[in-house]
This record gives sequence, structure tokens and C-alpha cells, in this order.
Amino acid sequence: MSVEAKLDKHVSSYAPMAERLFEQIGARTRNDGGINRAPYGPGEQIAHDLIADAARTLELDLERDWGGNLYMRLPGNGLSNETCMTGSHLDSVPHGGNFDGLAGVIAGLVAVASIRGVGIAPARHITVMGIRGEENAWFGVQHIGSQIALGRFAPELLDSSRRIDTGSTLSAHIAEAGFDAGPIKEGLAYLNPLAIRCFLELHIEQGPSLEAASLPIGIVSGIRGNLRCADIQCLGAADHAGAVPRTLRRDAVYASCELVCGMNSLWADLEGQGCDLVMTFGKFGTNPATHSITTIPGEVRFSFEARSLAISALSQIEEALRERASIVANMRNVTFQFGRFTRAAPISMNVQLHDALIEGAKTLGISAISIASGAGHDSADFAGAGIRTGMVFVRNQNGSHNPAESMNMSDFMEGTRLLTWMLAREATADD
Amino acid sequence: MSVEAKLDKHVSSYAPMAERLFEQIGARTRNDGGINRAPYGPGEQIAHDLIADAARTLELDLERDWGGNLYMRLPGNGLSNETCMTGSHLDSVPHGGNFDGLAGVIAGLVAVASIRGVGIAPARHITVMGIRGEENAWFGVQHIGSQIALGRFAPELLDSSRRIDTGSTLSAHIAEAGFDAGPIKEGLAYLNPLAIRCFLELHIEQGPSLEAASLPIGIVSGIRGNLRCADIQCLGAADHAGAVPRTLRRDAVYASCELVCGMNSLWADLEGQGCDLVMTFGKFGTNPATHSITTIPGEVRFSFEARSLAISALSQIEEALRERASIVANMRNVTFQFGRFTRAAPISMNVQLHDALIEGAKTLGISAISIASGAGHDSADFAGAGIRTGMVFVRNQNGSHNPAESMNMSDFMEGTRLLTWMLAREATADD
Repeated sequence: MSVEAKLDKHVSSYAPMAERLFEQIGARTRNDGGINRAPYGPGEQIAHDLIADAARTLELDLERDWGGNLYMRLPGNGLSNETCMTGSHLDSVPHGGNFDGLAGVIAGLVAVASIRGVGIAPARHITVMGIRGEENAWFGVQHIGSQIALGRFAPELLDSSRRIDTGSTLSAHIAEAGFDAGPIKEGLAYLNPLAIRCFLELHIEQGPSLEAASLPIGIVSGIRGNLRCADIQCLGAADHAGAVPRTLRRDAVYASCELVCGMNSLWADLEGQGCDLVMTFGKFGTNPATHSITTIPGEVRFSFEARSLAISALSQIEEALRERASIVANMRNVTFQFGRFTRAAPISMNVQLHDALIEGAKTLGISAISIASGAGHDSADFAGAGIRTGMVFVRNQNGSHNPAESMNMSDFMEGTRLLTWMLAREATADD
Repeated sequence: MSVEAKLDKHVSSYAPMAERLFEQIGARTRNDGGINRAPYGPGEQIAHDLIADAARTLELDLERDWGGNLYMRLPGNGLSNETCMTGSHLDSVPHGGNFDGLAGVIAGLVAVASIRGVGIAPARHITVMGIRGEENAWFGVQHIGSQIALGRFAPELLDSSRRIDTGSTLSAHIAEAGFDAGPIKEGLAYLNPLAIRCFLELHIEQGPSLEAASLPIGIVSGIRGNLRCADIQCLGAADHAGAVPRTLRRDAVYASCELVCGMNSLWADLEGQGCDLVMTFGKFGTNPATHSITTIPGEVRFSFEARSLAISALSQIEEALRERASIVANMRNVTFQFGRFTRAAPISMNVQLHDALIEGAKTLGISAISIASGAGHDSADFAGAGIRTGMVFVRNQNGSHNPAESMNMSDFMEGTRLLTWMLAREATADD
């Protein structure tokens, strides 16, 4: 029997454990129909406690850092000080789903248990990390736990960020949960990137691409960067809807809709040229204080967001948005006023790991494609710290960040097989 | 000296009276910077009182109907029982302008005074009417006074309509102003359409067409009908803005904007074919309770209004709107839900009077064009009652229904010259 086959057998044997953990954690952190695991709140703590219990049962070494992140370690054979890491976050958005984050931690436990079960004695340590506070929905700050662990967290956010439900500061919640914000204030790093060989994260896709392609698994090529403008105003002139002829109108709705349609054409064109891109006008509307059925709308406000793996595409999009707005403004006698644009650079996954995961999927007979991540993940911070990082996406249903979020256990087990294969290979590699 | 020249001389001599009336009524009904002459409120009453004073000075016969409309009559020479009517309304929208409505009453006073001044003894009576409650902004009911005078007012509105500022019913306000809602409840008509030879109304344009064409005067061909739908919903699916590729999105903003742009093209096409048409999406927006910069908008609500002189164009537009919505819905995997459509038929001005006014403008050397009225007017009710009706528009600046509404006295005097010419001709005509 090949090593792959033995690993597979052990992975399969842990399916009941995985299922039980999903069920227990889901049952104990669900209220009002949705999952609520607020960072440094009781729901997240329940998840940490149940995961720690499982890790103890698996006889892993447990550790917590000052920010409350949980490390569950299968020690190496002593020939290396390097660690291969895997894991994901244990918090959820308010009224969220059970699989976003949690899947990656449970997959990690199955992987280390299986590697040990096969009797492989890897040179390197393998550590499963249960990360705190990845979702920005609570404090308006994302990836709190991974940034704290890597010493990348901006200390001023400890007292300036307040949780939307309690109104209390992040530092108060960290203290209340029993952890020590002191080292965070000093900007200390708990993890040393130089001692980490790789970080591998399994996560649900959170999008419909795998489902649409009928594929269980995606190998992430990178995490899209974004370009955002929260507030764009189109200003025309409010006037009598019946009395002003077409060419004399300064209608902010027609003008803004033309801009949206123009950007939509550009999007289709760029995508046709192979450019990775998504583009959203999430908030859009006339002014409720002044609009009426019988008044030409003199004002529209809208938001804009573009995401892409290519930083050049984002620059091109900003330029195109301004240029098209200026053309529409001239044609329709309106003005567009742009608020501040913010930019986040795309993050590439490690090409070696990406290709190895593609190879692994082939070896294991798993149907998989390379895919861009449109959402941010803890992996971005590990990659940003210079650590070789890879991600495995598992097909999911009904979107994410909502109670209907769904995932088939068979898909999860396929992803976990791949994660296990990759971790075993990294932990035992000769180079 | 021709009769026209004599009439002109007298009209000019009343310019100071006209200017004084605009100033006095404006000064006494302006507060917070805007004009406030609420139907059956103190502002409207002040206008009625000052106009009645001026009519008394001109020795006209005064009368009021049970709804508070004011009639100022220059009696005929006894050879006819017919009346030629002119006038407009004395109320304003909240925080409105000084000329919308008032101009037509003052022009009427100048006209009858001038006709008498010339020594013409018309066979027919000429009556200037100061109309109550034309604006629907206060009670949500339009043309209250003219409908009451013509016995066309729906009695149930007396107790179901409440003024937005006071919350009191229309019948309470009518009683408070000292009038008698009894005959209104019985649906009695104060005016007998068969005894009215014509109704002529001078009014500011309320649109920018004359200003744009550098012409002081427009002769109204008709009042546009309209097609309205207050609430159209586009329903797609809210989802992660970064994680869903273009072809899998159900984005309600892109879909709604495509519909708007499609209707805009149709509008331009129809206009190119000579069709009178305006089209407005006055209210338009994503759902503030659920939208965000990073969420694909799953819902847009908007209103739609089209106005045209051609009833066939309005039917065609409704069909096109539904058809295009269904195409966009298929393309973008969204649905459009249409609320109730309401329709108001276009009202034609009397063709004879329209052509006579065009001829009169030529005779008097006034630059004028034929023009559609996009707004509703009391004239619509007189025309609807079968009375020969004509309208003269005076160029105005800064739109209307706002405190900046403006009108040059020289333009007003040109319109008044034409109105006077037309009234004299109608009052003395042999047929």
C-alpha cells in the first residue's frame, strides 16, 4: 500500500470526528438560527475549547499566544526546528454560517492525526492554528489574530476599535477573554516567520465558482487586491419631471446609470482579454430627503469596488472610471465628485505550493482547478510576512456570511485529503 | 391708431400696478426665504385679499363661490350672456416661488382693465378668476378650486385629504377659511360650461425650453398625459462582492442601470421620430438596510414616470418598459416586480385658440413657439369640462416650485399683451 493510500485510509477514519466537531460547535454557537462566534466572545471561546479538547484527545501539544490564538502541535523528530503550519479562524460573522473558518481548523486536526497515524515521523513540527478574530464585521478590523501572532497588528486599534454589539474596545474584550494586550501594544511577534516553512489553509470558497463548475476543490492562485471608493456623488439639477425636455435635463440617475453600464462593458472586455476582475456598485441611490416620482433626480450617491489579482488592472480601472465619468459629465451636464480611493494590493500564493497542490490533486484523483480568492483570508497575512503560503478551497453552497451557508462533508474530506498530502510532503521534504 | 396699438398702450400703463401686486403679495407671503400660500391658509388668503382690492379699484364686479374661488367681472354690453374667462391660481407649493399661478391672475386684471380703458364695449362678460388650491403638494389633491367650481371635485376627498403641515382635513380648512363645503359634498357646479365661451390662462413655463430658445412666449399645444409606476423592484441576490464571478452574479444595480439606459435609447429614438416624450426615474436606490460597499446589491427599488402629448406613446412606453425588463431579467438572472401603473390622459388645448394665439403673437410682433406643457394646470379641468381652452406660457428662470423661481417683467408684459389681444377678440367676436 502506497503512503498516499495509507494517509487516505487514516483521513477517512477521522471523518466521524470531523463531523462530530462541526455538529457540536455549530449546535453550541448557533442562536436565532445563525452562527455567532464573536472575536473574544463566548461563541469563539466555545469553539476554541471544543477544538482544544479534540487536540488533547489526539495528544497534540497545546499552546496559546497573548492574543488567544491556539497552537496544536505534532512535534517533529528532532532533525529540524522548522514548523509547517496549517489552520484557519474560529470566529464567524454575526448571524453567519458554521463552515467559514472552522473547516480549516478541523481539517488541520484530521491531517496531523492522519500523518501520525500512518507512522510517518516528519523532521519538522506540524502545527494546527486556531486563529482569533478574522472577520472584520465585529470590530471593523480584519485578521486580528493572525496579525497579532505575526507582530503585524497596529497597536492603536486596540483602544480605537469597538465591537458593534457591545460597544467595548478590542483591548477590553481581549482582557475579558483572559489574554494580555501588553505584548500587542509593544508590537511583539509570537511567531518567527523564518522558522515557519509554510502556511497552508483550507477554507470554503465563499463564492459559487466551484459549484458552477461541478468541482469539489479549488487551488488558490492569489487573493484579489481591491480598489474602493465609498462615496461618489453625481450632481445634476433637480427639476420638474414633466416640463424639462430631454436635452436640457441634468438627470443624475441617467448619468450614473450610463457610467455603470460603461464600466460593465469595460469589465466584460477586460475579462475577455483574460484579466481577473470583479466590480461592484454596492450602494447606489437618489437622495431620499429630496427625491420624488415627479422630480428629475439632481443627486445620486454610490460606492464603487473593484477586485483583481492584477494590480495593473486596478490602476486601469480607476483611470477608466474617472475618464468615463468625465465623458458622461460633459454629455449630461452633471458633475461627478469622487471621495477618497483606498487600495489593497493583491497577494500571490506561493507558486511552488500552488503547483504542488495542483499536482497533489492529480495524484489523489481529485478534480480541482486553480482559482482566485475574492475574499481576504488569514493566509494573506502569512504570505505578507514572507511565509510560503498555499490555500485549498472547498466547494460550498448558498454563499457565506449567512446561516444558510452549506458544505458537503464529502467535499470537505476531499480537501482534507489534499491538505494532508501536502502537509506530509512539506514536513518530510529533504530540501 | 389701431385697436392693437391702443390696447398695447393701456397694457403698458398697467405695468406699475402689476409690478406692485407681485411685490406686495410676494412680500406678505414669503417666509423662510420661500413663498408659502397654502390652500385655504393665511398666505393664499392674503393673495386673494390684495387681488380683490385691486379688482375693486378697477371697479370690477366681485363674487366668490362656495369653495372660495374669486371671480372679478367686467360686464358685457348686454347683447350676450356668454363669459370669456381668464385666470390662474393664487396658492403656491411650500417654499415656492412668487410667479407660479399669481402671474395669470395679475395678467387677467391688466387685460380687463386695458380692454375697458380702450373703450371697447364687448358683447360678452370677461371674468378674471383667482383659483384656490391648484398645487397638490399640500393635500395630495390637485386643482381643488377649479374642480370645485366646475362640479368635478370628488366629495370623498374633503374628509380623506389632510394638509401635510397641519394634519387637518380639507373640509376643516375650507370651513376655517369661511367657506361652505355643503354644495361641494352635493357635487354642485358653480360654473356652467355652456355659458363659458373660453378659458385662457397665462402661466410661467416652469421649464427651461423658452429660456433655452431665447423666446419670451410659448403657446401651449396641450398638457402632457402621464404614465406612472411608483414602485418597481429589481430582485437579484446579495452576495460577496469579491468572490462571485461576473457571469454568476445576480446584481440588481447592473440590471436596473441597463434597463434605465435601454429606456433612454428608446426615448432618444422616439424623439428622433418626432414623438413628444419625457421620462424620469425620480427615485432609485439599493436597500439602505442591507447594502454595503462589499456586497453585491440584491435589491433596487425605483419609480418611473413618462409624460407625452400622445396617449399612444404612453402605451408604447409601458409595453417597452416591461419587455426590456424581461430581457434584462433573463440576461442577469434577476426579476422585476412592477407595482400599480397609473395613467392620466393628455389634454389638448383648443386648436382654434392655439392657432389664434400664434396669429396674435405674429400680429403683435411677439416671438413665440408652440410648446407642450409638461406640468398640469387648472386649464386641464376647463378643457376637460368641454370649454374651449388656451394657454400662454411666459419664459421663466431657475425652474419653479422653489424660492429662486424668476420671471422678467418685460416677458410677463409680452404675454399679457397677447392675452389681452386674445380676450378682446373673443369677447367681441361676431360668431
